[in-house]
Amino acid sequence: MGRWQPNARGRLAEAALALYSERGYEQTTVAEIAGRAGLTERTFFRHYADKREVLFDGSGALQELFVDAVTGAPRSAAPIDALAAGLAAICPMFADRREHARRRQAVVMANPELLERELIKLASLSATLADALRRRGVAEPAASLTAEAGVAVFKVGFERWTAAGEERELSQVLQESLTAFRAVAAGGRADSAPRTGPAAP
Amino acid sequence: MGRWQPNARGRLAEAALALYSERGYEQTTVAEIAGRAGLTERTFFRHYADKREVLFDGSGALQELFVDAVTGAPRSAAPIDALAAGLAAICPMFADRREHARRRQAVVMANPELLERELIKLASLSATLADALRRRGVAEPAASLTAEAGVAVFKVGFERWTAAGEERELSQVLQESLTAFRAVAAGGRADSAPRTGPAAP
Repeated sequence: MGRWQPNARGRLAEAALALYSERGYEQTTVAEIAGRAGLTERTFFRHYADKREVLFDGSGALQELFVDAVTGAPRSAAPIDALAAGLAAICPMFADRREHARRRQAVVMANPELLERELIKLASLSATLADALRRRGVAEPAASLTAEAGVAVFKVGFERWTAAGEERELSQVLQESLTAFRAVAAGGRADSAPRTGPAAP
Repeated sequence: MGRWQPNARGRLAEAALALYSERGYEQTTVAEIAGRAGLTERTFFRHYADKREVLFDGSGALQELFVDAVTGAPRSAAPIDALAAGLAAICPMFADRREHARRRQAVVMANPELLERELIKLASLSATLADALRRRGVAEPAASLTAEAGVAVFKVGFERWTAAGEERELSQVLQESLTAFRAVAAGGRADSAPRTGPAAP
């Protein structure tokens, strides 16, 4: 990257997301993305393998932060607490990124190919988390289940964080998601119906 | 289906899985599958949309059994117990099918396109389970989290059931998976390391 292209990567990502939102992912070409960013196609391909990759740029960094925090949790921490440390560690990545995340979420959900890629990335995150937990001495199936739980809490929490009208911080929404998850597993109802009452069976 | 094709569907599925296992999914054609089954390509396409669908034939039935059991659980049952009823309900589908499931699992895991399809099917199961739970009065995010938990327990348990050397019944392995899941969420270690002891921190 020469100095005549300050933050080319970020500009390309922003241009891509704007075009995907305006006219749809499939209808957008790399040439158009580069043009919108005021850059060349060649510059695009110096940063991204294809127009799909622009949307998954942060996946590697997210996985690294998450797994490093799980690995670095105190040796005495229970698996679920190591997981909570991982969830807390990724939140700074999304500071001031809610609008970006909302637009990205809408684009990904609207395209089956992108949704499949998203699911593959989450499955990869789960497999890597399970590895990290096994290295902490967590046995199977607990390691895999804790990893799956972590991805579920992140996925459900993240979707809530990007929902229209949601204004709480990501850390708070993920914490709520983890708490609800634990309540559910403990046999709680976590619902609007009364647990006992005069209703007919 | 005429009476000159007894169980054409099952024969096609068996032939497809045998060929995918022997020579690989990508290298197998529909013509070869039909030939191995002693049937025509036309008959193949009367039963399956393409060679990928053969491997996902049971997904709809599994989803239906799972969701019906969750829906039909006693009104007083906690979400996690409705989920347990769903897990129990699908087990009969796999009676005497472990070898088939093992071969299918190996084929799916070896092919990224099939793995993506598998993940999409599991995501669809999760979404349908969450719907069923919301109809039971379970609030969000508990409904989505319980659904994700159900898919995680099924996925991890099913993989263990198909692992080499595993001889326990599916119902038992899924029960173990659910129990481990609940222990993990409750903050258990479920691992080989001692929870307390004389070890240095």
